[in-house]
Amino acid sequence: MKIGILGAGQLARMIALAGFPLGLDFIFLDPSVDACANRLGEHLHGDYSDPVLLAQLVECADVVTYEFENVPAQVVDYLAEHTKVYPPAKALEVAQDRWVEKNFFQELDIPTAKFALVSSLEDLAFAMPTLGYPAILKSRTQGYDGKGQVVLKSEADLKSAWEIVQGAPSIVEAFVPFSREVSIIAARSVSGSVVFYPLSENQHQGGILRVAECRANDPMQAQAEDYLTRLLNALDYVGVLALELFEVEGQLIANEFAPRVHNSGHWTIEGAETSQFENHLRAILDLPLGSTAAIGNAAMVNFIGGLPEAKEVLAIANAHLHLYGKSPRKGRKVAHVTVRASNSESYRNSLEKLERLATQVDDS
Amino acid sequence: MKIGILGAGQLARMIALAGFPLGLDFIFLDPSVDACANRLGEHLHGDYSDPVLLAQLVECADVVTYEFENVPAQVVDYLAEHTKVYPPAKALEVAQDRWVEKNFFQELDIPTAKFALVSSLEDLAFAMPTLGYPAILKSRTQGYDGKGQVVLKSEADLKSAWEIVQGAPSIVEAFVPFSREVSIIAARSVSGSVVFYPLSENQHQGGILRVAECRANDPMQAQAEDYLTRLLNALDYVGVLALELFEVEGQLIANEFAPRVHNSGHWTIEGAETSQFENHLRAILDLPLGSTAAIGNAAMVNFIGGLPEAKEVLAIANAHLHLYGKSPRKGRKVAHVTVRASNSESYRNSLEKLERLATQVDDS
Repeated sequence: MKIGILGAGQLARMIALAGFPLGLDFIFLDPSVDACANRLGEHLHGDYSDPVLLAQLVECADVVTYEFENVPAQVVDYLAEHTKVYPPAKALEVAQDRWVEKNFFQELDIPTAKFALVSSLEDLAFAMPTLGYPAILKSRTQGYDGKGQVVLKSEADLKSAWEIVQGAPSIVEAFVPFSREVSIIAARSVSGSVVFYPLSENQHQGGILRVAECRANDPMQAQAEDYLTRLLNALDYVGVLALELFEVEGQLIANEFAPRVHNSGHWTIEGAETSQFENHLRAILDLPLGSTAAIGNAAMVNFIGGLPEAKEVLAIANAHLHLYGKSPRKGRKVAHVTVRASNSESYRNSLEKLERLATQVDDS
Repeated sequence: MKIGILGAGQLARMIALAGFPLGLDFIFLDPSVDACANRLGEHLHGDYSDPVLLAQLVECADVVTYEFENVPAQVVDYLAEHTKVYPPAKALEVAQDRWVEKNFFQELDIPTAKFALVSSLEDLAFAMPTLGYPAILKSRTQGYDGKGQVVLKSEADLKSAWEIVQGAPSIVEAFVPFSREVSIIAARSVSGSVVFYPLSENQHQGGILRVAECRANDPMQAQAEDYLTRLLNALDYVGVLALELFEVEGQLIANEFAPRVHNSGHWTIEGAETSQFENHLRAILDLPLGSTAAIGNAAMVNFIGGLPEAKEVLAIANAHLHLYGKSPRKGRKVAHVTVRASNSESYRNSLEKLERLATQVDDS
């Protein structure tokens, strides 16, 4: 059985590493010649919408999936016509456009921050008195890792913010005075079975995830599962989906969702009975889903911009290194390290050491 | 960093899967065109002693290792002259010849069964009155998975046994009335650090390993570590080594050792903090070794000759499937499944289900 993946970055790489033990082989389509998953299968090198490469992908792969959500709509349509593609096109359409996404949340009675559509500087100026400052201007499409987002502190920021997003169709969102950021990851199989991972508590900086920590038995787990269930059912979803949430005064409000395996779930490789990567594959192949139970304490620390020395990481007790085979570049995720330990004190010690190490090499 | 591996079977495959997260790439030398690790790196396809391929391996790889011990001596010599090769040639020389191996154990005061050298049918007849029946005739070289071994029940068996081993240089060993078979696996790094895994308790049938179960806190752990330490030091060993032992009346006696990752350690992928495959790589790269502590209960069941249905295996709680990407053939190891669970009852239930499944598909 061969799985086709659009994208051959670290997410595709970790999917493939989880897939070989299931007897799977892989074929990737990615425009980057040195895409880091390309050691793990055939690499179709070229544009995502190249009709020849897409035809090859359809020909070679039994099922196609994505490692990122910004796949052009016509590509998804082509693939869906010719082969099995998961997650479904609908999930990509919603996730690709913040305006559509926010409205989708609202239709499902999933609370969000207050927001307004912004098509012009006038729209922005009109919306602000209702939303209040601070607020965040976000381009409707193509945003990830904090890109295409500008904080608005006062009316004086509006014009420059509108220039920064280059007048792109946007939304403006009221700032949410959250006590913490969490995410919940689920896998839903072709035949509709669903499993939920324990919540991750996430620390971002500069719009990029830095640390994600498994929160088994979190008091907000049930509410998060409830919202995520609505989303999965409404999308008739297949695969792994991550929903990012803010906690505000004991309530969760939705930020965004990613129709794919997610950085805040990397700790599941060592910290859960079955990793998000394996469960994504099980889901799209309609195999029984694996247990998502946490094994002890687990957290993941991202390494951004700079690579750690392997020997320094591996000298830390309970540390599990994941290098992506990417060359370092400012702001680029090049590795993560998971700390997993049954003993809480040992876990805390190791996590602190790792966070220091990550800060040292981080240039972003 | 690129690792060269002689052999591209399932052991090489699992080494590579453990190596990608450490940022490693792989190149394999294997005569089989469809060797199952070949999706995970460059495959030099040809004979192990092909001078052109060996030169290519030396050129491409930073360090070379083996997935099996029957590498021709001249190959090891060539590699050792031109690059870093671990485990050391001495370990292969000893492990390749049962006569040398048994004597080596004896020199280190590691107890073994009584044995005698057999170069002719007369030698065999001469040795038997001292050893007694039953006994086992084993060819000195090329034996694995019970091949080249014949049980002698009485004097009447001697002639036919000698014919079965085709008059090959052999040893004859007294039968050991063991209560159980165990193995211990250690990793020793270039700079001499050593870690020991908890004992595995092993069930063989027809000379092939069927089930290996992690025995954390086994009363025989200390004695096993003592014997293995002598072996590691005497060989100035680097990498993972497995020592197979019999327990007889509360004492361990050595059967044989394998200078490589070992089937009885496959449960370490899910059942130990760090797998034997990762620790083998850490050892040969002189990186800090990872914790070998067991995580809950764990056992591994081999699938031999026939493939299980993935969905049947994955429907069993706590089961982790490892398909090797090999086509089934009588007596061939094509997959293993690890059961890992913190809860002992759930662990036992799953293990029983798996053993039944393995028996159903087993044609050997």
